[in-house]
Amino acid sequence: MAAKSSSSEPGTVRPGGRTARTRAAVRDAVLAGLVEHGYPGLTVEYVAEHSGVHKTTLYRRWGGVDGLVAEALGLAGEDAWTPPDTGTLRGDLRALAHGIVDTFTAPGTAAAPTALIAAAFQSERAAEALRAFHRERFARCGPLIARAVERGEAPAGTDAGAVVRAVSAPLFLRLFITREPVDAAVADEAAEATLAAVAAGAHVTTAG
Amino acid sequence: MAAKSSSSEPGTVRPGGRTARTRAAVRDAVLAGLVEHGYPGLTVEYVAEHSGVHKTTLYRRWGGVDGLVAEALGLAGEDAWTPPDTGTLRGDLRALAHGIVDTFTAPGTAAAPTALIAAAFQSERAAEALRAFHRERFARCGPLIARAVERGEAPAGTDAGAVVRAVSAPLFLRLFITREPVDAAVADEAAEATLAAVAAGAHVTTAG
Repeated sequence: MAAKSSSSEPGTVRPGGRTARTRAAVRDAVLAGLVEHGYPGLTVEYVAEHSGVHKTTLYRRWGGVDGLVAEALGLAGEDAWTPPDTGTLRGDLRALAHGIVDTFTAPGTAAAPTALIAAAFQSERAAEALRAFHRERFARCGPLIARAVERGEAPAGTDAGAVVRAVSAPLFLRLFITREPVDAAVADEAAEATLAAVAAGAHVTTAG
Repeated sequence: MAAKSSSSEPGTVRPGGRTARTRAAVRDAVLAGLVEHGYPGLTVEYVAEHSGVHKTTLYRRWGGVDGLVAEALGLAGEDAWTPPDTGTLRGDLRALAHGIVDTFTAPGTAAAPTALIAAAFQSERAAEALRAFHRERFARCGPLIARAVERGEAPAGTDAGAVVRAVSAPLFLRLFITREPVDAAVADEAAEATLAAVAAGAHVTTAG
């Protein structure tokens, strides 16, 4: 969803076609550049060199570095990720928390999202792309909460976004604010704390 | 506490004396430089110019940019901050949450801590200083939790650090990861969710 609106692609080239390959190459080059040099060091020249897409094409379609960063995060939001479905809310929350810990403790998977989070300190376009990415992720978790409500594990009106924020927040706090280690025990603590808050109705939306 | 060990000050100069003034001037210059240029643009020259402390003195005492950043955060941890004491755990958690929202929604108070959080993406010394700063903050909140346990609002063994992390995490997540707005309602939601988790024993330390 999020990515759709940030893209000005002509609708005639199908996924998997030439345009999709170009966009994937550009995304990979942007992420590699952010990991290697950080946002202040990222240049359109670097992206051109590493994607094989001509510099003038990059400028014409994405306007510059900020547009390229937004595109990279937009594409990240177009992946096939679906929320866990373990049969219990506890299981689903633990799986979400462990997924975050796994992603950010393995250097290979941590580098790109970490670079994007860092870029948002310097680029409002990157911040907006990060916002859209998470809006989309929270929306995808709607069914997870709907199932929990059906099973009687969460009160009606529980907000999926609030629950996903709650279970991920303690992990991101440690990773990027207090700079403390995260591990499976921390993930489980986040899941248990969130379960208790959900049961107490702390994440029921009161307004629309 | 944290700041003590990061300092190699001779013990003979008393707080408020010449050394304290020098350190305060250096800290202010470092924070101003981080706010103005970010970590990649901060130089010892800038700190010298804005603190009135000679460049060679800065190099001798702090080694360079990384040491200066660590010093700035170490000094931030030496402030007189004490945790709220409103008479209830709910009131204390709300006060903590509102304090974070207030700090990070006013540009004047948000700029320096935001710059330090951003610097930690690029400097391991800054990350270590941020870690020490929060360790110290969590330790200061010990009495807040002790009072809650005494009043029967939290189970014995509730970990102060876990509770403070829990109430602040959703705010920092919105501020720096999902890049969503924070306000008083979000602060109250964080406090209520944390209260529920505390009551359920989700933040009781099992080891240590």
